[in-house]
Order: sequence, then structure tokens, then C-alpha cells
Amino acid sequence: MARLLPAALEKVIDELGRLPGVGVRTAERYAYYLLRSQQHNNESLAKAVASLKTDVKTCPVTFALINADETVSHLYNDPDRNKQLVAVVEEPLDIIALERTGQFKGTYHVLGGAISPIDGIGPEQLHIPELVKRLEDDEVEEVIIATNASVEGESTALYLQRHIKDAGVEVTLSRLARGIPVGVDLEYADQITLTHALEGRRLL
Amino acid sequence: MARLLPAALEKVIDELGRLPGVGVRTAERYAYYLLRSQQHNNESLAKAVASLKTDVKTCPVTFALINADETVSHLYNDPDRNKQLVAVVEEPLDIIALERTGQFKGTYHVLGGAISPIDGIGPEQLHIPELVKRLEDDEVEEVIIATNASVEGESTALYLQRHIKDAGVEVTLSRLARGIPVGVDLEYADQITLTHALEGRRLL
Repeated sequence: MARLLPAALEKVIDELGRLPGVGVRTAERYAYYLLRSQQHNNESLAKAVASLKTDVKTCPVTFALINADETVSHLYNDPDRNKQLVAVVEEPLDIIALERTGQFKGTYHVLGGAISPIDGIGPEQLHIPELVKRLEDDEVEEVIIATNASVEGESTALYLQRHIKDAGVEVTLSRLARGIPVGVDLEYADQITLTHALEGRRLL
Repeated sequence: MARLLPAALEKVIDELGRLPGVGVRTAERYAYYLLRSQQHNNESLAKAVASLKTDVKTCPVTFALINADETVSHLYNDPDRNKQLVAVVEEPLDIIALERTGQFKGTYHVLGGAISPIDGIGPEQLHIPELVKRLEDDEVEEVIIATNASVEGESTALYLQRHIKDAGVEVTLSRLARGIPVGVDLEYADQITLTHALEGRRLL
């Protein structure tokens, strides 16, 4: 089939097609939108994408994402946050989800993934030694394991639990509660969720 | 709520959030993906977006999208394509959809939208005078009206039909067939589609 679109448009479609979950049709829609956008808006997007990796780095203590000119995460450095309470998450974006609740006043530790033998990710690829070091350095009292409610998240939580006990660190370990999400009817809840909800029932 | 993400990441999320149908969560996912991409890939995307509008222009005859260094659409200039058969479409990307069939050997005319009083788009904003001029210049024999199967597309088709007749141009007018799409069960076809399918039935 002959080339149907201008080369520059094809190029943008190809580039946007690399984004996760973006197929050809979606990429075409995005590219066509950009073609009708103001040039200064497109330049602004281009500049932001080009400088992203140089302007963002990883905090060497918490492994959260920070500005390139910061030394450690500002959440970690905040005197109002409790360093002795640490929530362990898989990915940097999980921090946003927890911060949105406005209920957590501790600090975070990003593992950088979850144990997944299928994807070739073992515990040695996660920031676990750095977590154990923090537990000692900051005299951490409680670790909330906030990995995902997936098979990988559960495996990682189990591994962490054993590993921290084996390391001989005195610390309270907890895990985010499992149960029926807000707004979901009982009849639509799956069996495993309902089992968790029963096991985790609270006295009134 | 305090700033949770590095400024450069927030910026990319904001910029990508302008794309059609992209909410905050999707933009976050895209931005996080870009953060883990190779820098040269991000620079390639940035460059493609920045130069898109300068490298693409509109064909002055067919209103298809063309390279900035072309004078008219190469489909229009192709000696193998029949200039006396014109498919009229709403948007430039509709051309790709029709070309993918590999069945159309005529040329195209892009209207630049469809008549939609709600959006303030009247026939005077569409490339209709240029179409009428083409009908005469190229001695067009048939116009296939290939506007969308929406209310706006139908209104535009009706308007075109009347306008071309009023202009006194001798030309055969046709419209894409309406009916049951391939792979769809009769019981799931909507009433209007089924009505069209009945009306347009073919003798065997």
C-alpha cells in the first residue's frame, strides 16, 4: 500500500504508538489532534518529553521520584512526617495514590517492582537491602506493606515478611486491609475478596 | 496537597493530558513509561511532535494532508487514479480508512468536517465551493458521498446532494451503502441499521 499520510504525520503516529496501550487508531487520533493544536502547545509538549529523563531522578533513600536538583525525597525530609512509619510500595506512582487519601503521615519506600518469576524479577532486583538498612538507621517501628493485591504483590509481601524477620529487625509489620471496595454490591464481589472481607471483619 | 511528583514529570502529565480522551491516570501511565524509556526515543518523539505542524500542510485541491514540500496530494496526481470519480469525506483520516480497502481507484475531496449547527459548523465552513469547482475542472462523472453514518454526516450528505443539483452540474451522486457490518449477528443490529439493510437488499 502506498504511503497515505505525510511522512511527518506517520512519524508522530509511530512514536505515539509506543506508549502503553496505544494502538494505531488511537495514535492516529492523538497525532491528528496535535496537527490541529497550536504550534506553541506542541513545542511545550516536545520540550517536556525531551527533558523528562534529565530533570527527574530517583531518591537514593526512598527510591521515590525526585527533581534532579534534590538530594532526597522532600516527603522523607519533611519534619512533619514520621520516619518511624514506612509504607512499602511497588512503584513510584503508588505514592500518589496513598497521598491522595491524606491519611498517611509516615514515609515511603519504593521497591521498584514486585517479585515475578515469569518476568524474571527476583527479590535481588528490588530495593530490599536498602529497606532493611532504613529500618535500622531510622529505628522504624512499623512497616505497612502496601504492595498490589495481585499474585506478585502478595508474593512480595510474604517474602518481605520473612526476610525482615530473618534479618532480626524488631518491627511491627502490617498489610493494607482487603475487603469489599466502597460502592460495590455484595453480590458482585468476587469469592476471594469476600473471603478476605469475612476474615478481616471488624467488631462493632 | 503538597507537590507529590517531580516538576518535570507533572509537566509531562499535564501536557499529555491535553490529548483527546486522555485522563490523569492515563497521562500518568504514559509519562511513567517515558521516564523509563531510552532518552534517544524520547528525543525522537519530541522532535516529531515539534516539527509536525511545519512539515505537514493541506492540499489546495483535495484538502488531504500532504508533505510541506509537495504542491498537491500525490493520490490526486497519480496517473493511475481516476480524477472523474471523487469520494467526498469529512476528515483527512477517512482517506486512510477507504484506502485500506484497496478497492477505490478514484480521488478524494476532504470537506474539513460535517454540518453541525450545535458546534456552529455551517456549510460555509466546509470545502464545498472547491468541490463544485473540481466537478467542472476535472469533468467528474461520479461523486461518492462518504460522510460518516452520523446525524451530521447524513445532514451534510443531504446538503451536498441539493447543492450540487442546484449548481446545475451534471454528475452521478452516490452514497456508501448502509447495512449490517461483517461479523455482527442480526439480533444485535440496531433498528435503523436493520431498516437500511432491508431497504438496500440485493437480489441473488
